[in-house]
Amino acid sequence: MKLAVVGGGSTYTPELIDGFARLRDTLPIEELVLVDPAADRLELVGGLARRIFAKQGHPGRIVTTADLESGVEGADAVLLQLRVGGQAARNQDETWPLECGCIGQETTGAGGLAKALRTVPVVLDIAERVRRVAPQAWIIDFTNPVGIVTRALLQAGHKAVGLCNVAIGFQRKFAALLDVAPDQVHLDHVGLNHLTWERGVRLGGPDGADLLPKLLAEHGDAIASDLHMPKEIVDRLGVVPSYYLRYYYAHDEVVRELGTKPSRAAEVAAMEKQLLEMYGDPALDEKPALLAKRGGAYYSEAAVALASSLLRDTGDVQVVNTYNNGTLPFLADDAVIEVPAVVDANGATPLPVPTLEPLYAGLIAGVTAYEDLALRAAVLDGRATSAQGRNAVFTALLAHPLVGQYTYAEGLTDRLLAHNREHLAWA
Amino acid sequence: MKLAVVGGGSTYTPELIDGFARLRDTLPIEELVLVDPAADRLELVGGLARRIFAKQGHPGRIVTTADLESGVEGADAVLLQLRVGGQAARNQDETWPLECGCIGQETTGAGGLAKALRTVPVVLDIAERVRRVAPQAWIIDFTNPVGIVTRALLQAGHKAVGLCNVAIGFQRKFAALLDVAPDQVHLDHVGLNHLTWERGVRLGGPDGADLLPKLLAEHGDAIASDLHMPKEIVDRLGVVPSYYLRYYYAHDEVVRELGTKPSRAAEVAAMEKQLLEMYGDPALDEKPALLAKRGGAYYSEAAVALASSLLRDTGDVQVVNTYNNGTLPFLADDAVIEVPAVVDANGATPLPVPTLEPLYAGLIAGVTAYEDLALRAAVLDGRATSAQGRNAVFTALLAHPLVGQYTYAEGLTDRLLAHNREHLAWA
Amino acid sequence: MKLAVVGGGSTYTPELIDGFARLRDTLPIEELVLVDPAADRLELVGGLARRIFAKQGHPGRIVTTADLESGVEGADAVLLQLRVGGQAARNQDETWPLECGCIGQETTGAGGLAKALRTVPVVLDIAERVRRVAPQAWIIDFTNPVGIVTRALLQAGHKAVGLCNVAIGFQRKFAALLDVAPDQVHLDHVGLNHLTWERGVRLGGPDGADLLPKLLAEHGDAIASDLHMPKEIVDRLGVVPSYYLRYYYAHDEVVRELGTKPSRAAEVAAMEKQLLEMYGDPALDEKPALLAKRGGAYYSEAAVALASSLLRDTGDVQVVNTYNNGTLPFLADDAVIEVPAVVDANGATPLPVPTLEPLYAGLIAGVTAYEDLALRAAVLDGRATSAQGRNAVFTALLAHPLVGQYTYAEGLTDRLLAHNREHLAWA
Amino acid sequence: MKLAVVGGGSTYTPELIDGFARLRDTLPIEELVLVDPAADRLELVGGLARRIFAKQGHPGRIVTTADLESGVEGADAVLLQLRVGGQAARNQDETWPLECGCIGQETTGAGGLAKALRTVPVVLDIAERVRRVAPQAWIIDFTNPVGIVTRALLQAGHKAVGLCNVAIGFQRKFAALLDVAPDQVHLDHVGLNHLTWERGVRLGGPDGADLLPKLLAEHGDAIASDLHMPKEIVDRLGVVPSYYLRYYYAHDEVVRELGTKPSRAAEVAAMEKQLLEMYGDPALDEKPALLAKRGGAYYSEAAVALASSLLRDTGDVQVVNTYNNGTLPFLADDAVIEVPAVVDANGATPLPVPTLEPLYAGLIAGVTAYEDLALRAAVLDGRATSAQGRNAVFTALLAHPLVGQYTYAEGLTDRLLAHNREHLAWA
Repeated sequence: MKLAVVGGGSTYTPELIDGFARLRDTLPIEELVLVDPAADRLELVGGLARRIFAKQGHPGRIVTTADLESGVEGADAVLLQLRVGGQAARNQDETWPLECGCIGQETTGAGGLAKALRTVPVVLDIAERVRRVAPQAWIIDFTNPVGIVTRALLQAGHKAVGLCNVAIGFQRKFAALLDVAPDQVHLDHVGLNHLTWERGVRLGGPDGADLLPKLLAEHGDAIASDLHMPKEIVDRLGVVPSYYLRYYYAHDEVVRELGTKPSRAAEVAAMEKQLLEMYGDPALDEKPALLAKRGGAYYSEAAVALASSLLRDTGDVQVVNTYNNGTLPFLADDAVIEVPAVVDANGATPLPVPTLEPLYAGLIAGVTAYEDLALRAAVLDGRATSAQGRNAVFTALLAHPLVGQYTYAEGLTDRLLAHNREHLAWA
Repeated sequence: MKLAVVGGGSTYTPELIDGFARLRDTLPIEELVLVDPAADRLELVGGLARRIFAKQGHPGRIVTTADLESGVEGADAVLLQLRVGGQAARNQDETWPLECGCIGQETTGAGGLAKALRTVPVVLDIAERVRRVAPQAWIIDFTNPVGIVTRALLQAGHKAVGLCNVAIGFQRKFAALLDVAPDQVHLDHVGLNHLTWERGVRLGGPDGADLLPKLLAEHGDAIASDLHMPKEIVDRLGVVPSYYLRYYYAHDEVVRELGTKPSRAAEVAAMEKQLLEMYGDPALDEKPALLAKRGGAYYSEAAVALASSLLRDTGDVQVVNTYNNGTLPFLADDAVIEVPAVVDANGATPLPVPTLEPLYAGLIAGVTAYEDLALRAAVLDGRATSAQGRNAVFTALLAHPLVGQYTYAEGLTDRLLAHNREHLAWA
Repeated sequence: MKLAVVGGGSTYTPELIDGFARLRDTLPIEELVLVDPAADRLELVGGLARRIFAKQGHPGRIVTTADLESGVEGADAVLLQLRVGGQAARNQDETWPLECGCIGQETTGAGGLAKALRTVPVVLDIAERVRRVAPQAWIIDFTNPVGIVTRALLQAGHKAVGLCNVAIGFQRKFAALLDVAPDQVHLDHVGLNHLTWERGVRLGGPDGADLLPKLLAEHGDAIASDLHMPKEIVDRLGVVPSYYLRYYYAHDEVVRELGTKPSRAAEVAAMEKQLLEMYGDPALDEKPALLAKRGGAYYSEAAVALASSLLRDTGDVQVVNTYNNGTLPFLADDAVIEVPAVVDANGATPLPVPTLEPLYAGLIAGVTAYEDLALRAAVLDGRATSAQGRNAVFTALLAHPLVGQYTYAEGLTDRLLAHNREHLAWA
Repeated sequence: MKLAVVGGGSTYTPELIDGFARLRDTLPIEELVLVDPAADRLELVGGLARRIFAKQGHPGRIVTTADLESGVEGADAVLLQLRVGGQAARNQDETWPLECGCIGQETTGAGGLAKALRTVPVVLDIAERVRRVAPQAWIIDFTNPVGIVTRALLQAGHKAVGLCNVAIGFQRKFAALLDVAPDQVHLDHVGLNHLTWERGVRLGGPDGADLLPKLLAEHGDAIASDLHMPKEIVDRLGVVPSYYLRYYYAHDEVVRELGTKPSRAAEVAAMEKQLLEMYGDPALDEKPALLAKRGGAYYSEAAVALASSLLRDTGDVQVVNTYNNGTLPFLADDAVIEVPAVVDANGATPLPVPTLEPLYAGLIAGVTAYEDLALRAAVLDGRATSAQGRNAVFTALLAHPLVGQYTYAEGLTDRLLAHNREHLAWA
């Protein structure tokens, strides 16, 4: 079994390696290729990766390369974990929207649109090259914004599944609170990537008893506090929103908070510098504790499980991003949603979802409209005029439930273009 | 043919009477009953109504009464034009939402929810009493919020159609700009009541040539200026939003504007006082010019046309509020939409609507979710606990695209309750 | 010794009575007259007042009357504690400014201006009548806004001193934290009424050692938490602002908070209803615990001390509101400031104040400019045209550091007038 | 007569040169030195400057140099027109404050503080070096923020006067409206640099008839429209504020406007690029029309007049920035104000100013407090700790009437530091 990780030079990779090592029974990797154009980073990360495998006695081979085609050739699965423009671009995504009174966040709102516009063309190009040399490979996309990127991949006919760690994070947290094994916890998780709610927490599987009311009754404070939301609101909803919902449910409060402190990107950039220094230490042979603060907890567990289901045709249930295909009747079939799905060698098939309350359906519909328009803007190429491009960006922003006003949409469009011109073929 | 107007003591009624008089060939009314509990107003308005009919030689009989049952008995159509709580309640709807930084408007946003909560139970009670004494009668609802009220009526099994003057207003304006007869102008009007866009302006009928691009090219300034929106935005959209869209597309700007001037309700209340004084003048036998400033232009034309289609089974096309029934595939069948429909003795059947752009579909879906929740709150009766009632109000507000944040939803809920307690059975 | 309390029917009066009873050695009152036009309240409050005196063995006589002149005739001191318009007016002061995005508060900002406009003419009329029948009497003003009201009284030539409980509150709190007797704590208190900072906390008197650094080091958390301000901010300032400063230092945050909950006036009104019911109980012979939540802690102590100093010519130091007379060199002599002053039979003479940091001086100058303009507006009488009146209100609002913008000033002016027309001679 | 212009390579210099050429009778320059470290710019600008002199037959010699000392040696006057950090720094000053909901402007608010912090140390260093080689020279400061920079220079004992073109701009505009010669118009101009009001417009001199009421009555629309303020506001004030007052009187409106368009710095940078290309054309021998859009109209007239008064001891009246010295009694003597002053060989002596209305005095006092604290922060050198520096910046921001809230002050301080670290000795 051969896996390739595109963007393998990420400081986050040791987390993934650690998971591959620990879970080698689930996913017996023979060859793991880390593909990255950044040779310096790749060497540091690759070295540590090999030391982790060695320490844990993993027999797999770890290869590093800057060459995509040779790296992915013959792979069974290709994991995409890119950040086009790096933390510098993220820093911009997090700051200029604030100039217009809108949240600055890397996947939500105007910053997320900027990221989508930079990322989709790069990912589609990679996927096309992957298809040429590894037509059988599954593409597992971690690259944000996962919903839009996965839709772009599926729309272009790729064998792709989108993955996020929000669901597995809740699964682990709820399991701990309930004092049961994580795999005993099934989530009635529903929505779009970074716009989800846990409507039920079932013991044993999709048909198990719903322990969410009990969880909220006994651990409501802890759950609300993790979300930085008042407990009364969570009680009132009766479901657990992901913390990304705070950008919606408390938008103006978050904007003001963001205006009182440095950006998250600045923090992460500092952390990454430190991590790379650590990785260079030949004595280090495990993921350092600091990595936990970098974000992305349990991504490796989720990735191993998903790859295993796809490659070993397990048919078990996992929360993934895939085509709606009628699951949420108010969305088009080709919308990409994030729900529990049966995953096997044919890919992901969503489990049925009971009728969704209007409170959630309305917001999902609004954000899906934005995602549709965002993808249309993201796939514009050099044949589009700059007026067409600008208009596509403006329209996506006006459609976004967190923007919705033309004054903001205009100002955001100006800034998005000014800060991302080099990434936009039509600009 | 017998018509009854519930709320017939409105200062607006002379506009309706004037229309009935002018258009008596289209709608040959034999008996017109003005029903209103406010005897003073009814006498003033009824007197003027009779003088208008007399002056214009209309042979119909005008009856005034405070008694609903006797007034509507045997009617062919019953027009509802109520304002529960009067201009005083409207004034509140327009002011307290501003305290939370949200727009104060009588049909849009939190003020509109307050109005729905006050109005739906009253309208349902009236409709039930109408059904007992005039089971055959069509109910034509002008009462705002028309979308929610119409849905309430249909859901309770009434023969109801909802009517608004936004579409006819655009038809007349565009006809004037194009220099053609109004009935030559067919609008590709789509959306929900007070949330609509004109996607096409066709000459001669639904299949006529679309003159909207020409209209925008030649009269874009005038159209944008009427909407108080920048011309660039209208050009960018390529469709003509109703002016209610400004509450969405320029929400924060409107909030600030509202904060710099007295409420619209205060203006209208002053105007109504003046109008009633005029109506008392026995020499007055036509609608006074001041009435045009009162709002509601062309309502009488629209009402006559609709009543005529329903009662004379014409099968022509009119813009009305009725069940979606698959017209917009992303909404439930029992959502109420505002579109051109074939109207005949069986009621209204929407014309097919070409696929809607995500920019509009997303917002329509969001507002429909709110309307659904608003109606659920509005039909709560005394069996609901005050906690259930409060929660229903909070949920509807949180679902509203113009609120969407729990801090605002909480503050608005407090204020809505404080100002409307007497109208809420569960409070 | 005879004292009169104008507004003696306030639910707050039992607090005052309790203080008079406990501190009768400091201020040996022989006759106490409660003057109030509200006969019902006065009877309830007067009854309880007599029972409190009786229980505590105070020999003084308590008289109740609606007649100002007979009540104050021959009094040595007259305490003013009015609320023109009652809690209903306060409720308005706390709500309509929020419609314009400005704080709604009874003494600060636009609400405080409304209160000043309602109150100053009433107080000046009372003072004039007092002067006729008790020319020797000192007027002690608790009536808010104390700064503006005191300036109005002084400007009209009255023997007046303004009093607030903010300083005594800090004195008691700091004494408790330092574990010393309250009268051992001298505050370097400076500013305007409801706009003050504690720059030093000295042991034993004005020349004692400054324990503020120690207090902040050891009890900074408690102090900041009482103020609802972050500890870092208090540390950064190095002085203790009064909690009214939060309306300035965290204005927008407070506006949003106020938009999420019912008004303080609504709470107080509910409490007053409860208190009056309690007062009617003939078995009650002490101030009920609930009264502590009503606000105004230690007012009675402060009032007794001040009256004693004025009437017994003690020459001790108290924090009062009086003419600046050069104390703060950047203000006019006839500005009213709130500082420690030597108080004797000639009135209050401020202690010298060391040069004030620009951070505080700038804000004091700005608010003094507003107070000056507010007073000019408040003394306009029926000879002013409504345009002059409106302009005076607008100008005061534009000068207020918390308003400062003409859009807000216009909207606030409209609302102030609409809600207070009956109180404005020129409107 | 020798003049030196420090920052002589500015694209703006040809405007100055044109003025020197036209007004050579008023100021007979023999040698003009353009000092600038940017050799490329200096060559382009210097070339055009010589061609302008040549074309207009000015006999003076124009020298260009990067060496300050040789350039200013023996000069009679040194003009300072610097922009530390160039348009790139300005672009930052105009954008990051918007992230916190505050205006981004190069001289007003947080952006102005950043500019002061970058500029004051550089200007003080230059002035010190000037003093060594040209101790007799007058320093005329155009460098923004002029008020703070001039105060820094005066405080360090330099022979300095600050100059701005706002007053001369009004003089020219009013003269045109009144159809009189500009030098016949005396302005009752008062305030601080970029915070001024015209309280009177007198014909012939300080004692002439005040034509401001006539101007407002006849040309109020034009005047208000130039200021982008509603005419009603200007009428209500009865004085003419400078357009910088819009940042105060309509702060939130301007913030939103700024959020809807690119920064002014970006526009100016594009313009400067174009101008420099033009300057390189050897056929160009006059200032190009485009330069008028660059800002700074009539600066050359003002500079010539001021230099002439100082160097030729004329004793005429000009609007300048100089020490208050009791002119405005509510400010310290060493505050720098902008008022008409008698200018002669001894420098500038303000004319007396009639008592200022509280509406203006309050704001001036508040901004002076900020300027005082801004200067304290700006003169911190490497001996200050970074905590002291940060605190000084925070305090100045909290004191600024346009900030005033600690949440904003914190966020602004973070951003100011992040974007200006290299310019701050203590950071």
